[in-house]
Amino acid sequence: MDLDLIRRLSQPADTKVILCVLDGLGGVQGPRGRTELEEANTVHLDRMAEAGSLGRTLPVGHGITPGSGPGHIALFSYDPLEYEIGRGALETTGIGFELGPNDLAARGNLCDLDADGCITDRRAGRLPTEETTKVCEALRQIALPGVEVFVEPVQDQRFVLILRGEGLSAAISDSDPQREGVPPHEVAATSPEGERTADLVRQWVTRAHKILGTRERGNGTLLRGWSKRPDMPPFPDLWKLRAAAVTVYPMYRGVAKLCGMDSIEGAQDFQQQIDLVRKHWDDYDFFFLHYKYTDSAGEDGDFRSKVDAISEFDAMLPGLLDLEPNVVVVTGDHSTPATMAVHSWHPVPLLVWGDNVRRDHLHQFSEPNCAVGEIGTIPAKEVLPLAFAHAGRLAKYGA
Amino acid sequence: MDLDLIRRLSQPADTKVILCVLDGLGGVQGPRGRTELEEANTVHLDRMAEAGSLGRTLPVGHGITPGSGPGHIALFSYDPLEYEIGRGALETTGIGFELGPNDLAARGNLCDLDADGCITDRRAGRLPTEETTKVCEALRQIALPGVEVFVEPVQDQRFVLILRGEGLSAAISDSDPQREGVPPHEVAATSPEGERTADLVRQWVTRAHKILGTRERGNGTLLRGWSKRPDMPPFPDLWKLRAAAVTVYPMYRGVAKLCGMDSIEGAQDFQQQIDLVRKHWDDYDFFFLHYKYTDSAGEDGDFRSKVDAISEFDAMLPGLLDLEPNVVVVTGDHSTPATMAVHSWHPVPLLVWGDNVRRDHLHQFSEPNCAVGEIGTIPAKEVLPLAFAHAGRLAKYGA
Repeated sequence: MDLDLIRRLSQPADTKVILCVLDGLGGVQGPRGRTELEEANTVHLDRMAEAGSLGRTLPVGHGITPGSGPGHIALFSYDPLEYEIGRGALETTGIGFELGPNDLAARGNLCDLDADGCITDRRAGRLPTEETTKVCEALRQIALPGVEVFVEPVQDQRFVLILRGEGLSAAISDSDPQREGVPPHEVAATSPEGERTADLVRQWVTRAHKILGTRERGNGTLLRGWSKRPDMPPFPDLWKLRAAAVTVYPMYRGVAKLCGMDSIEGAQDFQQQIDLVRKHWDDYDFFFLHYKYTDSAGEDGDFRSKVDAISEFDAMLPGLLDLEPNVVVVTGDHSTPATMAVHSWHPVPLLVWGDNVRRDHLHQFSEPNCAVGEIGTIPAKEVLPLAFAHAGRLAKYGA
Repeated sequence: MDLDLIRRLSQPADTKVILCVLDGLGGVQGPRGRTELEEANTVHLDRMAEAGSLGRTLPVGHGITPGSGPGHIALFSYDPLEYEIGRGALETTGIGFELGPNDLAARGNLCDLDADGCITDRRAGRLPTEETTKVCEALRQIALPGVEVFVEPVQDQRFVLILRGEGLSAAISDSDPQREGVPPHEVAATSPEGERTADLVRQWVTRAHKILGTRERGNGTLLRGWSKRPDMPPFPDLWKLRAAAVTVYPMYRGVAKLCGMDSIEGAQDFQQQIDLVRKHWDDYDFFFLHYKYTDSAGEDGDFRSKVDAISEFDAMLPGLLDLEPNVVVVTGDHSTPATMAVHSWHPVPLLVWGDNVRRDHLHQFSEPNCAVGEIGTIPAKEVLPLAFAHAGRLAKYGA
């Protein structure tokens, strides 16, 4: 469904919709021939499956493994190939820095350079975060003509560099050659509109390396992934509703904010996320809840922990259902099979529960059932149109 | 998945992928209420189905019956509606003639003309191939300014005419009116860039008809389907791998070569194709194997022979699996139900076996099972992206 059509058909209603994203939910059969979701204790999810419809999402396309950015963008009803969050923007968003429309961000590494200026360690021996924080403070003394400059530590040797000002362009190259034994690249414009920005960045790099030159480790910088915030139509305007993100981790909060959602902050775990939803129940029509632990366990390759993370989510579900939402969607932003210990391309289980569902006589929320469920396998960006239809928030097309 | 995205995400890996195309694989229930695939002895395919995922391909679209060209183009991950192999190019490719980038090809018929120049038989009484071969030799004496000319017999009254030179254009009309009782059309440019080419072809036709004028049968020519080789990005560049086609019939070899694959030649049957794969196992990352006999039997309307062709393929499968490929795909380029005795639009059974598959608890490779399999019904051009994802050859999209 394209955004013009959404804009045209979306309508206000007195209904509440909750989107629960279990990060990396989808799995693959483990040692006992069953997936993480099949092994988990999902008594509440299974009850919802029985009363609801099952299906699967395809976040980007067949065979495409999505990062967290595109995985969420798609669930928020945007085309993840059209609205791409660059690495710089995503990293910046991930530390809670609010990117403005005139900001240009790069992901940075402190690195080690030898006497000839060649890179000897791209990560400066994984410099501790504390040390990187001090280096960032020192780098903040660099001023550039006509723009504001921000240098923010991320983790270990990683930092972000943000330039703020009119007319900045992402059409410039990386300084990071992504290998050692060569000097950093000189940043250059990749098209004419990048000329001025490239010149500013070269000035910054020269002065940064002068400041860092006396250090033993981390005497150089590597910059890559220059990007601005994607210029997406705000979610609340598109859908004519009040939308809130309730997350623990800044990255997911950041992506939701880039899409124009409010953020309700302060939760440290999923129970607290539910409490915040309850507290703000009257203030919003749509709540996005992000649950991280399924993905962390999957990425650790820890099958049992992922099973447990799903079971724990399930145990907390009644707290959400008690609020009597009209529609609840449970899905993931991508699969992270514990057997693979990375994100994967496998379609993601999807459960839509609430008003006007057509049931599919499936009694368990599992990958095999989702593959034959009522909803079918649909692009992730179609999930919210479907949920909002169930909530009476999409008008008829044509007379 | 569009080609830009493939080019961006594809990555080399130390894995082997085999694509087995059983021509015309898909069927429809025959006299005993089961399809050819259901009736066949598929003990090895069924074992692969059990350990792998099933699904179906849609070569071009719902209700669209593909020719062999688009059926294969799609399986090679190209959009068959974007990259169209014209009739002239396909016919030329089918006889093993290697079309260069400056070649323009037409499909030709020898026909019978009466004293007024009107067509009395579009096929010259299906002139024998030998006779057509001699006619082609005679026609080779026609030289045209600034271009090389090739005239090659195909079968019966069919031949191909190929012009080779700079600046030739397919923007010219057919001389074949596709009916009798009228003279052949004069070839004309359909847009300005075709003017010079049309003029060359008119010269060729005039001189050809002068040479053939004294013959009793086959005293005229009909030309249609002017086309150049499709300008597709080479498969090995797109996927960053070494690709080989191992086929018996020149048409399929030709389509693979048009896509930039190498051809390993010399096999007369499928067992020899397997032997060639084994011999060249270290030289390539991807092997395309074409199996013709399912389609020939289907086109003959011979249900039993198609069942046997599938069983024979199945019996040879262990020879491929012994090579320990990472991923094996078994599918067809289209359906050819024996009950119809022609190509059809029915979705085609698909089996993906290998690393990181999510199993679907289906134990037989059959049309009904494929309709409810894990993979779903996907465009044929998404099959290799999926297979290469399983083989670790597609990087993550977005951070």
